[in-house]
Amino acid sequence: MERETFRRYGHQVVDWVADYLEDVERYPVLSPVVPGEVQKQLPREPPVTGEPMDKILADFRDIIVPGVTHWNHPRFFAYFPANNSGPSILGELLSAALGINAMVWQTCPAATELEELVMDWLRQMLGLPERFRGVIQDTASTGTLCALVCARERVTGFRVNAHGFAAGTEGGTLRVYTSQEGHSSVEKDAKIAGFGAENVVRVEVDEAYAMDPRDLEQRIVADQRTGLRPCCIVATVGTTSSTAIDPLTPIASVAERYGLWLHVDAAMSGTAALCPEFRYIHDGLELADSYCFNPHKWMFTNFDCDCFYVADRGTLIETLSILPEYLRNKATESGAVIDYRDWQIPLGRRFRSLKLWFVIRHYGVEGLRHHIRRHVQLAQSFASWVREDDRFELVVPPPLNLVCFRLRGGDVANQELLDRLNRSGDLYLTHTRLHNRFTLRLSVGQTYTESRHVERAWKRIQEVAAELEFS
Amino acid sequence: MERETFRRYGHQVVDWVADYLEDVERYPVLSPVVPGEVQKQLPREPPVTGEPMDKILADFRDIIVPGVTHWNHPRFFAYFPANNSGPSILGELLSAALGINAMVWQTCPAATELEELVMDWLRQMLGLPERFRGVIQDTASTGTLCALVCARERVTGFRVNAHGFAAGTEGGTLRVYTSQEGHSSVEKDAKIAGFGAENVVRVEVDEAYAMDPRDLEQRIVADQRTGLRPCCIVATVGTTSSTAIDPLTPIASVAERYGLWLHVDAAMSGTAALCPEFRYIHDGLELADSYCFNPHKWMFTNFDCDCFYVADRGTLIETLSILPEYLRNKATESGAVIDYRDWQIPLGRRFRSLKLWFVIRHYGVEGLRHHIRRHVQLAQSFASWVREDDRFELVVPPPLNLVCFRLRGGDVANQELLDRLNRSGDLYLTHTRLHNRFTLRLSVGQTYTESRHVERAWKRIQEVAAELEFS
Repeated sequence: MERETFRRYGHQVVDWVADYLEDVERYPVLSPVVPGEVQKQLPREPPVTGEPMDKILADFRDIIVPGVTHWNHPRFFAYFPANNSGPSILGELLSAALGINAMVWQTCPAATELEELVMDWLRQMLGLPERFRGVIQDTASTGTLCALVCARERVTGFRVNAHGFAAGTEGGTLRVYTSQEGHSSVEKDAKIAGFGAENVVRVEVDEAYAMDPRDLEQRIVADQRTGLRPCCIVATVGTTSSTAIDPLTPIASVAERYGLWLHVDAAMSGTAALCPEFRYIHDGLELADSYCFNPHKWMFTNFDCDCFYVADRGTLIETLSILPEYLRNKATESGAVIDYRDWQIPLGRRFRSLKLWFVIRHYGVEGLRHHIRRHVQLAQSFASWVREDDRFELVVPPPLNLVCFRLRGGDVANQELLDRLNRSGDLYLTHTRLHNRFTLRLSVGQTYTESRHVERAWKRIQEVAAELEFS
Repeated sequence: MERETFRRYGHQVVDWVADYLEDVERYPVLSPVVPGEVQKQLPREPPVTGEPMDKILADFRDIIVPGVTHWNHPRFFAYFPANNSGPSILGELLSAALGINAMVWQTCPAATELEELVMDWLRQMLGLPERFRGVIQDTASTGTLCALVCARERVTGFRVNAHGFAAGTEGGTLRVYTSQEGHSSVEKDAKIAGFGAENVVRVEVDEAYAMDPRDLEQRIVADQRTGLRPCCIVATVGTTSSTAIDPLTPIASVAERYGLWLHVDAAMSGTAALCPEFRYIHDGLELADSYCFNPHKWMFTNFDCDCFYVADRGTLIETLSILPEYLRNKATESGAVIDYRDWQIPLGRRFRSLKLWFVIRHYGVEGLRHHIRRHVQLAQSFASWVREDDRFELVVPPPLNLVCFRLRGGDVANQELLDRLNRSGDLYLTHTRLHNRFTLRLSVGQTYTESRHVERAWKRIQEVAAELEFS
């Protein structure tokens, strides 16, 4: 593509994006397409010769966009947010244009140095311990995988890496502890890293769905008695079902007492610690070995961007380092630089710090706090409306920006409520099971969500509930 | 950021990118900054209040860009290319703006359906087996990790996932085979997946640095005799050092004979199979279990974009699937859709197929072939110049677009040649060791590389060689 052609279509695409962000409310939140509907409009075979950009962009608008579920929609209340912002998009655009691979310092010094700096800014912004050193990963799943592998190597003296899991764990089968509400990635990562699903111990939770540290300790002691080898605890700050906050202080003291690696998965809620009044969620983090949170969830940074920290980078690097001849270079050998390839699973890496730097500078710390507080306040207002309506109940008190609620009634009615709301295109909610009951989740975190959007969601929920009552 | 502000700065950024792509030749290829030089120009603390976008973009230009190593530069001949193009950048921009997470079909039907379609287009374009089904991963390292985990589960009847590596491999220690030139990620992934570094068997290579299938078979037989359990072969189509092509036909027949999983890592060279005359590199692929190649290397698609294929998607999905309550939905339960979360390590995923679709449609199959042929031809011309100059030697015949060469002389002189060339900013080469000698690598694959760039590179190489002779 000629550079002038790029300029022309670049302007067109920017205009489309600006219009889209302005008009996103007009789209149905959840795409109404049925399975196969997008594909059947597209040719089964690739084009032999190049096609004009006008046609490609028209197909994008006419075929792709109707099949998009709009995570940017201010009435996207499903799952967790993947919020976004103008400066983030511009940062990603520049990162795509530079097209660098920051696998070692030399292959793009600015990418490594900016990442180190921005990760330290975020450490300060969240009040994380001073010794924490950070690296950007794609997602918290990958962060947890890194933590599990580090835990495995630390407890076995790097013998699994060297000799394999069987030979390296002759001292006993390694065990991983997370709560019954811990994320599915803990089990997935434990499989990948060779622990096996049955060695992921699901610790009991309390009424608020937070990990019970006494049960944790009892399970560790019981495992030790039967010759098993406790290795790693994954605590959660903001569980996926209900943003429950595991109590880190007692968990960390269990980890310390029994010599376990403590990983804290704050993928969702960590961002709240930007605000001093919410920083209590990190109490006890001083003793953690690793930690992550996702700016791509709640810090206006487009997916993907997980910030992963370790207290002792030496273990991380020793666990994941490689140095084939073709990656040797003087800067690496000088020891004066970081080579982030040894801080992550893959070798290659994008320039992700750019978008994060743009976001932090555009909003400033106070600006970010403002929006976080706004989201929490909107969720708390919604919770108060639920409390006031006898037809509904709050399933758990909402700690931050996620409200778990349900119609008083059976699972069928709640499933029907959810389906009707989502089919309407007006809002998008998802569900979970709490106290073994079908529970609706309303997660507030989209960049453009204002009180009128939450009010309208509540009005629609009430209307559909009324329909159900009389149907 | 207001939408109109986004529009204004979006236009500015597009203009900067267009100018950058036009002017990239004027930058030094390898950034001349010294360690710490970028960071020391930036504040150690995050801004309390938001800053104007003009200032952020000025700092990007003045502080970040001088610290960038320009992978877009037409005289970037280092490592492997991470080439790029206008349509790819525009696709990434739209993907960033939509900001979706395509973890399940429902969360963005268009992303899943376009990915399935584009992966099938590429299957057709490369002549891959009909039963191959594809998914986009970040990098080939992650693709290899998926392959190793699948191989592990298939050979143990999914017992490692269930019971852990030690209990699941009571039938014998699992072994992985790759050539002495196989990528460093094979060892890294084997560690992560619990095999252990010492269970990665490095098979001998022939004079062209391709895997010796007889040595492979002998090592498998020897392992079986001593009670070890052969599990997986990772063959390479285009090794990192020298783009050696492992002979897939005899390797596949060994894999079949002994029941091993065969993964083919064509990260670098797979793209060449777009051209019928180079498709021989895939001979024997019909029997492979998994395969990957990287459009982010040589197919004008900005990093990251690895295309990973499996012959039996059932094993991949069974190995990596999770289904917590909060991800349940009717589309998934209908069985009519793909949920790509179960085809990869992390849960979340970007809309990567968009940029790939833009690239394929913009160039068309013939357009892509044209550029691949051009790159191969430029590398072959360079090789012929090396052959004609008595001061130099080709270390191996170049199969495609990478030339491995050296000054006739010691390693010190070659290291000095490399350092002087790279310091000049005029071109960027990297090195490897072949036949235990320091060897320079010239990899042709940048989008904007033309014959004049390769000619100038050769001229500079000759000049510096002459300087060295008289110094």
